[in-house]
Amino acid sequence: MKIGVGQINTRVGDFQANTQKIFQACEQFAKQGADFAVFPELAVSGLPMKDLVGYEKFVESAETALKELAPKLPLPALIGCPRLCDGAIGVRNSVFWIVDGKICDVFDKHLLPNYGALNDTRNFDSGDKIGCINFKDKKIGITICEDIWSLKEVSTSSRYANQEKPLDYFAKEKIDLLINVSASVFSSANDNVRHKGGMLCKVSEYVNAPLVWCNLVGGNDNLIFAGASAYVDASNGEAKCECLNKFAEDLKVIDTDNVSGYDGDSADFSGDDDLLQALVLALGDFVNKCGIKRVLIGLSGGIDSALVAALAVMALGKDRVIGVSMPSKISSQHSKDDARDLAENLGIEFHTVSIADIVEATESSLAPIFTGLPRDVTEENIQSRSRGLVLMAISNKFGALVLTTGNKSECSVGYCTLYGDTNGGFAPICDVYKTEVFRLSRLINEKAGREVIPQNTIDKPPSAELRPDQKDEDSLPSYDLFDAILRLHIDEYLSASEIIARGYDKAVVEDVVRKVAGAEYKRTQYPIGPKVSPVAYASDRIVSVAIRRGMQ
Amino acid sequence: MKIGVGQINTRVGDFQANTQKIFQACEQFAKQGADFAVFPELAVSGLPMKDLVGYEKFVESAETALKELAPKLPLPALIGCPRLCDGAIGVRNSVFWIVDGKICDVFDKHLLPNYGALNDTRNFDSGDKIGCINFKDKKIGITICEDIWSLKEVSTSSRYANQEKPLDYFAKEKIDLLINVSASVFSSANDNVRHKGGMLCKVSEYVNAPLVWCNLVGGNDNLIFAGASAYVDASNGEAKCECLNKFAEDLKVIDTDNVSGYDGDSADFSGDDDLLQALVLALGDFVNKCGIKRVLIGLSGGIDSALVAALAVMALGKDRVIGVSMPSKISSQHSKDDARDLAENLGIEFHTVSIADIVEATESSLAPIFTGLPRDVTEENIQSRSRGLVLMAISNKFGALVLTTGNKSECSVGYCTLYGDTNGGFAPICDVYKTEVFRLSRLINEKAGREVIPQNTIDKPPSAELRPDQKDEDSLPSYDLFDAILRLHIDEYLSASEIIARGYDKAVVEDVVRKVAGAEYKRTQYPIGPKVSPVAYASDRIVSVAIRRGMQ
Repeated sequence: MKIGVGQINTRVGDFQANTQKIFQACEQFAKQGADFAVFPELAVSGLPMKDLVGYEKFVESAETALKELAPKLPLPALIGCPRLCDGAIGVRNSVFWIVDGKICDVFDKHLLPNYGALNDTRNFDSGDKIGCINFKDKKIGITICEDIWSLKEVSTSSRYANQEKPLDYFAKEKIDLLINVSASVFSSANDNVRHKGGMLCKVSEYVNAPLVWCNLVGGNDNLIFAGASAYVDASNGEAKCECLNKFAEDLKVIDTDNVSGYDGDSADFSGDDDLLQALVLALGDFVNKCGIKRVLIGLSGGIDSALVAALAVMALGKDRVIGVSMPSKISSQHSKDDARDLAENLGIEFHTVSIADIVEATESSLAPIFTGLPRDVTEENIQSRSRGLVLMAISNKFGALVLTTGNKSECSVGYCTLYGDTNGGFAPICDVYKTEVFRLSRLINEKAGREVIPQNTIDKPPSAELRPDQKDEDSLPSYDLFDAILRLHIDEYLSASEIIARGYDKAVVEDVVRKVAGAEYKRTQYPIGPKVSPVAYASDRIVSVAIRRGMQ
Repeated sequence: MKIGVGQINTRVGDFQANTQKIFQACEQFAKQGADFAVFPELAVSGLPMKDLVGYEKFVESAETALKELAPKLPLPALIGCPRLCDGAIGVRNSVFWIVDGKICDVFDKHLLPNYGALNDTRNFDSGDKIGCINFKDKKIGITICEDIWSLKEVSTSSRYANQEKPLDYFAKEKIDLLINVSASVFSSANDNVRHKGGMLCKVSEYVNAPLVWCNLVGGNDNLIFAGASAYVDASNGEAKCECLNKFAEDLKVIDTDNVSGYDGDSADFSGDDDLLQALVLALGDFVNKCGIKRVLIGLSGGIDSALVAALAVMALGKDRVIGVSMPSKISSQHSKDDARDLAENLGIEFHTVSIADIVEATESSLAPIFTGLPRDVTEENIQSRSRGLVLMAISNKFGALVLTTGNKSECSVGYCTLYGDTNGGFAPICDVYKTEVFRLSRLINEKAGREVIPQNTIDKPPSAELRPDQKDEDSLPSYDLFDAILRLHIDEYLSASEIIARGYDKAVVEDVVRKVAGAEYKRTQYPIGPKVSPVAYASDRIVSVAIRRGMQ
């Protein structure tokens, strides 16, 4: 059998564009002799739909778009689309089986996740039927995403304790093929899906049939879907696998009678190069799906803004990226030079606007009510916020989206100024630890075979430059130590006492943990940025602000 | 039987303070001859716990605090506390029955809500036992919050289709009393709980036993819990009810043999006075639970900032509130006068800082790169952001929390400047429509019997004053029309076509709906503010930013 796997990049609510993509893929698959086509989860509506499902007309319009598409399709297809139904919520996450232009069957997502970045139980009713299609004498089981994550061996095993598991049904049913219409959220630690012996292999073994995993690709707000769709057959001893691209749309016809073995392509996402591609995809898709022409970045001469600018050029091309240097009286010459060098290396439009006069006017205006009070963090923040003011003015005037340059390490402890350097519509590296920022910057230069990010930017000690001779390590532990503690506290949900028990310094750990709690109010107002770690703020770790701090 | 109902105000993570409150209440109840005491949901840990449950040590510490409290209790008590357990998540939302200083039984929340502002299924495993305590020859059924919202007559009826309903169990079991340990989220439309024939009456009828509803009181971030606990007996024909206070802590011993009938106190929350009290509670609790001494408000002379300042004085007292007027060259004399009059009426500290020099310095600094480009919204935003800069500097220097003054109508369509007037740590009226802002302002003056909010502030046409002679109604429909459309689109999830079908002007409706979608990116960065409407942004209506707009 020949199966057209349509790994497309959809936009939420863009029914016309999404169905057009599906149609074009089907035309290509038909020409290539495919027997049928399959597309990712909710291909017609895009995903995550979140509370847009509350609008009955919205769901109805998606169904209408699917019904208009159906008669035009040149081959049978499995297409994901929400549908109105009876139930507490009244909407299901479904896949439609269309043959000869007609909807012949429909299957609903059965297991609805509510953990990490997912909250399907809020927006969908669970399906009450698990079933197969019969096609060309083959019995093909249909599942949607989470439906296949119910083996004891995989992480969500103990969930859905009281629900029938689709995999148990299909294991008994003796099927010829299992299809999974998927939108699996990327995380750089998610390295156990496609590789030999990984999750897909286990599922194929369990149901004793080959498996087509058609995964979504693209960035939608904070979520990245990595593609990497695959056909996996572990049903007859020796595992076979055929792979689609990672981090890009890919249309591939898989001939199930002629599948190669496992090779290097079948690896998952554990490398820095994957992380880099994920970040580029997320940034480009956010900007493009918002319909924004250009982006704007404050270039400090430091490594965070340098990495963000380099990512932006990779995602959008140099003509859509503007860099602005905003020196103050305190800014060092190397900062100004490094910012200019970076812009030249990237070939982007570059402006310099001094904030000195704005800072002075602000301090003078406030002088009458600040009389007699010592200088403190207030004046540091005035500098950062003056830059925020300048950047937003340029953003407004030029119609360019400001990119926020903060990394996960600084977001964690609030080492940033709200309404200053946190300004922006998207924060490309807010889930990337500082130690990773260094690694990715080196990788970019290495891959380019030249100095894209100035070597001096990589080598010099990080500094916010909000007071003379300031260094990050005056206020924070060394980044190696700092990130190690943060990973335990955030990504592994360990409390201070547990981290200390692992041999870390008590005072340092307690200070970091206290600062993490104290910075929650800044994070509640932080721009959207892509989840790439196992536990990203805003999606995987949601806590209140007005709490007693330091207890966790 | 005499039951001590401990309607206390807890803080998340403040195990010591929460258990101390429970202890003091129990001492008072014991003196008053109570047989046992009951407290709200998760009284020991506070609520919502959200992803703090991910920290095993955090849950363990709450349990430890409870175990340390138990031997000190002078009477039996039902006390809510999370507990570690086996299961997919490993935590349950429980209530402990303590007699003679020992934990004698424990019950877990059975029905876990995941809708509106609630996501219990993310953080807790469901209980697998529904049961009773036997006390003084009485059989008493124990439930937690959502457990009693499963009657067909109440709104969540079609949820939990596959789960055993605690109420069905207790209806069969023939109990003498039902206890509900609760934390019910306030909404001004939530007027069907306590009154005669309301939800509690229906539950009492259904299980044929009287009911004690011990509800949490207090504000926790965006959620308000209104208290209004009650003893309701509708088991013998004529309904009886005894009530605790709304919007305040209240400790009351209810003698079940001597309960009065229904009276005015038993009404729920439909009036403007309730809304006012809810907003005051939320504001005061946010500030106090964050441990913040003072708040700071930019007073424009307009009605939104006037209402917020008045609420702040009601919540915190005049000595903890600072007002700042920040006139520009454009500001009218009446704006400056109205701001000053308001501050005088409220008796608060008041400063004036002109933004003229900051605006001028910013425009001059940008002049070289703005050469030849026309003035536009950029210059309006520079004014708003200069005010944001000044306000945050004063906030930093004085250690005062900035309150954001935006209302729900303007948040809906983005009629506000990000990093300008949206700055702040708490937004007390962001879920209050502009028409409600007028009503509440008039109510404050009426209740005070004097002009607290200057009459001119109430009477003049609203204006952002970012360009000469600007009026809100130049850009927006009249607020009566505007709010009516917004209520249909937001609070009732109606799409443009459905609103138009109700007789509203097509162009106006489509413009409003388009603007609502276009302002999502501003709302993602908006400060926390209290949910008071049926559908509040951030809690009840969560949507993505990078979507095709206007489809809903």
